[in-house]
Amino acid sequence: MQPNTIYLASDHAGCVLRKTIRARLQTAGRDVVDLGPEDGEAADYPDFGAKLAMALENNPDARGIAICGSGIGISIAVNRFSWVRAALVTTAEAASLSRQHNDANVLVLGERLIEPAIALTCVDMFFATEFEGGRHQRRVDKLTAITGGRA
Amino acid sequence: MQPNTIYLASDHAGCVLRKTIRARLQTAGRDVVDLGPEDGEAADYPDFGAKLAMALENNPDARGIAICGSGIGISIAVNRFSWVRAALVTTAEAASLSRQHNDANVLVLGERLIEPAIALTCVDMFFATEFEGGRHQRRVDKLTAITGGRA
Repeated sequence: MQPNTIYLASDHAGCVLRKTIRARLQTAGRDVVDLGPEDGEAADYPDFGAKLAMALENNPDARGIAICGSGIGISIAVNRFSWVRAALVTTAEAASLSRQHNDANVLVLGERLIEPAIALTCVDMFFATEFEGGRHQRRVDKLTAITGGRA
Repeated sequence: MQPNTIYLASDHAGCVLRKTIRARLQTAGRDVVDLGPEDGEAADYPDFGAKLAMALENNPDARGIAICGSGIGISIAVNRFSWVRAALVTTAEAASLSRQHNDANVLVLGERLIEPAIALTCVDMFFATEFEGGRHQRRVDKLTAITGGRA
């Protein structure tokens, strides 16, 4: 576990964009851990979403990027975990808002629904934007406290 | 509890679009329950997301529509619950995919980031599209089984 590490995960439908983003982050000198899948590996989005979430547990300075075909399936999976705040976005504006208002720690993209160049602007904005705190902190704390109907 | 009921919920930043959608659904003769908030009521998205999720518990034929400013905060909140599959979308194509592949039971919209006319096409597509089942059923079952790190 390292602070500021960026963990990447996808399903089979997100591999191409995942590698594009991995290259961008590595070129920028970021510490990146790619959780897969390997090319051709069977990859259901709930499994890789859970793998990403577990990498972020007790690791508040780490970040994640999760990708599937639409982004929808893997965004549901990672948000099952109380320490994840995952934002499915299609624009840099939404990526910025996810940091400002929601203190998002996972960016979610849909490879089939976003142009790679736009996806990279979302990534850049996600890492360039700070959480605003204030009234937003109360709401973020409530997100952490939701038990999902469990004890 | 009624089958096929559509439950609506938002935070303060989603009230206008919520009412637009409510009117559309009521005009179409759908059974709608608006969970609020009232105008001017204090409304943190985690609270209203949880309220919507609880309305859907043990109610597999019901559907939900959740709205906040960006859609991000309330999408995180509702997906904390194992029986919710909530899709934050910005296009009718994504709304369709959320039904086909993820059997989404909650549609999520960001009032500040989507034109009302586009939002209504998302709503129409969400209710017009059937789940494909097959290989997608296995993945949906895995989403239900994720415990979020809890016993």
